[in-house]
Amino acid sequence: MKAIQKLEKTISLNEVEKPSGADEALVRVVLSGICNTDLEIARGYANFQGTIGHEFVGVVEECAVVPKLVGKRVLGEINVGCETCDWCSKYDARHCPNRTVLGIVGRDGCHAEFLNLPARNLIEVPGDISDERAVFAEPLAAAYGITERVNIDEDTSIAVIGDGKLGILCAWALAAKTQHLFLIGKHPNKLRIGELGNAEGVILDDAAKMKRRFDVVVEASGSESGFATALDLVRPRGELVLKSTFHGTPKWEAWRVVVDEISVVGSRCGMFGPVIDLLKDSRYPLEELISGERPLTRGVEALDEAEKPGVMKILLRP
Amino acid sequence: MKAIQKLEKTISLNEVEKPSGADEALVRVVLSGICNTDLEIARGYANFQGTIGHEFVGVVEECAVVPKLVGKRVLGEINVGCETCDWCSKYDARHCPNRTVLGIVGRDGCHAEFLNLPARNLIEVPGDISDERAVFAEPLAAAYGITERVNIDEDTSIAVIGDGKLGILCAWALAAKTQHLFLIGKHPNKLRIGELGNAEGVILDDAAKMKRRFDVVVEASGSESGFATALDLVRPRGELVLKSTFHGTPKWEAWRVVVDEISVVGSRCGMFGPVIDLLKDSRYPLEELISGERPLTRGVEALDEAEKPGVMKILLRP
Repeated sequence: MKAIQKLEKTISLNEVEKPSGADEALVRVVLSGICNTDLEIARGYANFQGTIGHEFVGVVEECAVVPKLVGKRVLGEINVGCETCDWCSKYDARHCPNRTVLGIVGRDGCHAEFLNLPARNLIEVPGDISDERAVFAEPLAAAYGITERVNIDEDTSIAVIGDGKLGILCAWALAAKTQHLFLIGKHPNKLRIGELGNAEGVILDDAAKMKRRFDVVVEASGSESGFATALDLVRPRGELVLKSTFHGTPKWEAWRVVVDEISVVGSRCGMFGPVIDLLKDSRYPLEELISGERPLTRGVEALDEAEKPGVMKILLRP
Repeated sequence: MKAIQKLEKTISLNEVEKPSGADEALVRVVLSGICNTDLEIARGYANFQGTIGHEFVGVVEECAVVPKLVGKRVLGEINVGCETCDWCSKYDARHCPNRTVLGIVGRDGCHAEFLNLPARNLIEVPGDISDERAVFAEPLAAAYGITERVNIDEDTSIAVIGDGKLGILCAWALAAKTQHLFLIGKHPNKLRIGELGNAEGVILDDAAKMKRRFDVVVEASGSESGFATALDLVRPRGELVLKSTFHGTPKWEAWRVVVDEISVVGSRCGMFGPVIDLLKDSRYPLEELISGERPLTRGVEALDEAEKPGVMKILLRP
């Protein structure tokens, strides 16, 4: 089968052996989405080697362990735990020290014709959710996962920094929880998309008037300057959610975190269950985030395309 | 009167006008303590100009507003709020946007013969607390202030990084809350002092065996490497308390905060009320932290002395 792989320092389309459905489910990928983390991995993040990609919707083709899954359209939680450690026993696989992660840590990903995941990681997609919406489950769950890390109620004032696809998804996921949400970015066209999903768009320069007033600020731009802006906007004793995967070691004004007693809260993966309703909800125009769909065979060029300014989600179809 | 001042870029002993007791209390300083923040201010932190110092015990000499305070031995909360803003109304002065802070922000400090503070900032010292213990109220309150920022119970496992005076005070303050507390540092003699107050001392090299196991890690070394060690020791979804005032912009591995979903929690000043009992409690050998007492007139040399390796608290007596 065909797969987009990071091998040594190169990204390429390779012909590889098709996985089996003997131990884990064999899933035929219908659509996969290119995430900024894929681009970070291409640049060396996490030292990953193998097939990249972790956002997908697919159909189970073989599953010896749970045969009734065959033929089902599914999403897949990307963290695969050992099921025996303290974390797996008490909580879930997301912080299992022995975990593999689809297309990120020790496990081939979804920019391929087929993938393997344990049956327990799969969630059937309700029939009224299109493939083009279902493929957003993973990043939308990551966005909604912020609600596991900070308390948000209808009075919580929130700013999300970054009008890329991650920022917009964070804004939409949190706009389901509070009436006071601003999406801050540099691009009027992207802010307009964010506003379709109930966020209030603000151009970065105008955000300077909103200093020290937000209970929660979500940094979703992945840039050092975005973090500095977040420090400007959060109130004393407020929470600054770090959502983007940074590569390297940025600088930060640690003294401001001390003086204003801010909490900088890391947030990674969310659970898929809570976002199924958001995937169904037409108030969240997920389709507007799609910049284009390319055949898997053009995946290498698609990764380059995904880096270009103004480009949002690029989907790959095997 | 005499005062140790930062003026332009220089620290010097100056003859300045004695303040009055007309609006605020006039306090005669009995003892003051040199804090690392004083040394940071000497290097340019917070762009402070004026008399430095914020740790003291003194006696009220004049107080037109509350005359009954005259003659009382007092401690002083260092943040002076406007009393009208949201923060002052709802909470206290510590995050008032218009605040002054004794010897740190817009208000002359305590390395002087006299100081001014509003009567409402003063707390009478119980007679059974010596001057040499009372002078630790401010840093001990700052250490205990961690309990306002993170939940700590008897099962919480805590590591404090840094065996300087701040680290030891943090360890002692938190050892009152949990049975699982390690003080991590490079200096066997300082760790031994920490152990007098019920912390378990661990040499930094041995801490490498304790990775990812602490619920709470307190960074009290003020160094980039201390922060990196803290990231090594905290468990996924644990809390990393930033206690030291850093000057400048250190680098950090922000991606680890995201991947392990750590909360980096800034902590600055504490309230004095809760630590009066700790000041009384002979299980906390505060006197062991005193490296020496110098006359105020030797304050400039004392600041140099306080920077030397192995030196803990230097007190100044006007």
